[in-house]
Amino acid sequence: MKHEGGQSCIKRMRIRLKNEPGYLGKLATLVGELDGFLGEITTVKIVKGGSVRDVDVSVPDEGVFDHLCDLVRAMEGVDLISVHDVVRETHLGGKIAVRPSVPLENADDLSIVYTPGVATICKLLYENPELARKYTIIHNNVAIVTNGTAILGLGDIGPVAGMPVMEGKALLFHELAGVNGFPILIDSKDPEIIVAAVRAIAPTFGAIKLEDIRAPECFEIEERLDAELDIPVMHDDQHGTAVVVLAALLNIARYTYTNLRRSPVGIVGLGAAGSGIHKLLKAYGVREILGVDLNPQMVRRFEEAGGRPTDLEGVMREARVVIATTGVPGLIDPGLVQEQQVILALSNPDPEIRPDDALAAGAAYAVDGKSVNNAMAFPGVFKGALRANATTINDAMKLAAARTIADLAPEGDLIPFILNRGVHEAVAKAVEEAALKTGAVTYVEELEIPELEGAE
Amino acid sequence: MKHEGGQSCIKRMRIRLKNEPGYLGKLATLVGELDGFLGEITTVKIVKGGSVRDVDVSVPDEGVFDHLCDLVRAMEGVDLISVHDVVRETHLGGKIAVRPSVPLENADDLSIVYTPGVATICKLLYENPELARKYTIIHNNVAIVTNGTAILGLGDIGPVAGMPVMEGKALLFHELAGVNGFPILIDSKDPEIIVAAVRAIAPTFGAIKLEDIRAPECFEIEERLDAELDIPVMHDDQHGTAVVVLAALLNIARYTYTNLRRSPVGIVGLGAAGSGIHKLLKAYGVREILGVDLNPQMVRRFEEAGGRPTDLEGVMREARVVIATTGVPGLIDPGLVQEQQVILALSNPDPEIRPDDALAAGAAYAVDGKSVNNAMAFPGVFKGALRANATTINDAMKLAAARTIADLAPEGDLIPFILNRGVHEAVAKAVEEAALKTGAVTYVEELEIPELEGAE
Repeated sequence: MKHEGGQSCIKRMRIRLKNEPGYLGKLATLVGELDGFLGEITTVKIVKGGSVRDVDVSVPDEGVFDHLCDLVRAMEGVDLISVHDVVRETHLGGKIAVRPSVPLENADDLSIVYTPGVATICKLLYENPELARKYTIIHNNVAIVTNGTAILGLGDIGPVAGMPVMEGKALLFHELAGVNGFPILIDSKDPEIIVAAVRAIAPTFGAIKLEDIRAPECFEIEERLDAELDIPVMHDDQHGTAVVVLAALLNIARYTYTNLRRSPVGIVGLGAAGSGIHKLLKAYGVREILGVDLNPQMVRRFEEAGGRPTDLEGVMREARVVIATTGVPGLIDPGLVQEQQVILALSNPDPEIRPDDALAAGAAYAVDGKSVNNAMAFPGVFKGALRANATTINDAMKLAAARTIADLAPEGDLIPFILNRGVHEAVAKAVEEAALKTGAVTYVEELEIPELEGAE
Repeated sequence: MKHEGGQSCIKRMRIRLKNEPGYLGKLATLVGELDGFLGEITTVKIVKGGSVRDVDVSVPDEGVFDHLCDLVRAMEGVDLISVHDVVRETHLGGKIAVRPSVPLENADDLSIVYTPGVATICKLLYENPELARKYTIIHNNVAIVTNGTAILGLGDIGPVAGMPVMEGKALLFHELAGVNGFPILIDSKDPEIIVAAVRAIAPTFGAIKLEDIRAPECFEIEERLDAELDIPVMHDDQHGTAVVVLAALLNIARYTYTNLRRSPVGIVGLGAAGSGIHKLLKAYGVREILGVDLNPQMVRRFEEAGGRPTDLEGVMREARVVIATTGVPGLIDPGLVQEQQVILALSNPDPEIRPDDALAAGAAYAVDGKSVNNAMAFPGVFKGALRANATTINDAMKLAAARTIADLAPEGDLIPFILNRGVHEAVAKAVEEAALKTGAVTYVEELEIPELEGAE
């Protein structure tokens, strides 16, 4: 497992705060000095001479947090009452549930949702299979399939240890797009077994989202499933990431007066993310794409897809825009940065080069992975594909998503705020329209369903 | 597909009712005369001289309902305002959803449930796999697996047309036991493909519920999966049904002063339900079990499992208790019924012999399938197995469930009311205890988890 850095230790401190100005400010300063930041602050209650607050704190690691606690205990005007591991507490029992969306309160409800009522719906669907879209959840279900071989920056930790991520994606699916995401964990690294399992259970779903499956297996699994199934299959680490990266690039290009199509773009790391980014940039019209990877198999794939292989120095020397997705912190030496270069160092939690260092070395624009959260893309992309009854998620749909995300970013930002539901709806609409325009859909005739007329 | 009878046409009538006594009574009488019954009646609003009500009506079929509408239109004091297909309306968009069980309201929540917070939980589970029980939904997930070959009384209508039943089971799982049931539809009749698919996705779930898979494939699929997987696999049509039938029989035996263990029991129909009933009655201690089926393969299985094959006449002549699960309405001629016989004619919606006819022919007790709804068993059985961390659902667990259900039935009834949550909790407790007692569990050491101490 790779090193985990950033502000990944999140705790909730319950403190008693003296009712005089400045104490919260002092606490904030203290946290900032420890390379952390304050999150939500809520008032639990007002007490004599002060208040009790819950303060969420993010710091680099547990050691730093312990140190912070010592410092807070020594502060005048602030009492540390207790400390909560808010991440663990929130994960207790898991993060999602399968719940009814219709009432079940009495025997009458039971006869409607279960036997005998349900039999009339089964018969209706048997006679009119297209109506499953209307009377079941299938068309709104997305399988979130992983084998746990590339979970976050943690690597091959297995599907069960990856479950919290899958539940998180399902949670975001519901919150941001009203889609039923359901995790499917497969304990196998064999593409044959994964393809067969997903094919077998595919009738349950309107789309398949492959997630955190390592390269190169992810390529074969996605290609085979998307070809075999009449529903969309998308590996999020490739294409969801690519959509958000392109969206960010469209805005960076605007802010830096760069003509993206005519600028050489270099990709450092040609795994799942790098490969997806390459394909989408090509579809967008970028003419020259250079790439580098230590794995010859990845380089061969890149070259076959029209990319120009080189080495790290070559990329840094020739590319106007550099996108790094290697998972190797500090890979890019500031000495390699060219004046006016645009650098996206996307590995989480620690980038290939810190944006500050890149800017100091002359870059025109530099960001790390926090700026291109791929949760910006997948909810709307899948929702749009489901609504269109799409058979695949093609380049036109991905480009439409990227343009919409870019357009809706607040001026000065690269992408919108993830929890802005309106953006996800706009992405869904754009993707749906692109699917319909490019014909990547199963046409369903609007059925004349024999409805009972209202009497009178 | 077989004929569907009973009161399977359920509609909601909106009526304006004159504010004088007797009109609702007249409507009820009318519905009764058409072999139907009234369900929920809700008052929509009070209007001048009367009220507007929604009345749920169950009648045998659409034709009868149309006739009822004509009669209601002709009634004095009652105006039929509109008619709603309440079953279809309730099924619109499906009946379940995957929802978050934790809040996602701000950037802070996002950092807790998603990156970077989620990474600490993934690492924790990688280092302590047993903690997946605590920090994911896996231990509370049940796959509801079907290939759609034996949906209700409708037969082989395919998995997609069977989805409304699976969603109904998932809904009941949540409402009655707080369990996450998620449908898994497999479009194959090949046990090999089904076993491989379920095996592959098994890490997602704490248990597997096989559902509406036809015999004889259901036997092989269940046996192989339960042997291969370290989580319980139960085919509900076999064993859920058997548990409820045994519960009902325990009470019938009490009401009729029958010694069940010493009475010859005859099973008519040795498919999934008949086979499950046979095995559980044997486990309970019934000494002599006769059986009949038209399919020699089923008869052979029955004999191998210790049953005594005979013909329908033989069963009716020799058995003190007759249980029919053939799906053939009217199969048992009243002339075959013996004095003091107990008859459970369980095929839905039309039984092998109508209880009234059996009683008239001398039976001591007679019921049809409406009395032994298998939704009485599965929620508590699975919940208990999940809580015990069970590796299988053995006879002791099924017997414990049956005894609990029987004990909690109101005096005079065979089983409790399905929506009585307390009964399902009691069943879960009994099943959990039986699992622990019989050692059918994976022992999980209670871990010392390094928790942060509350300061001060």
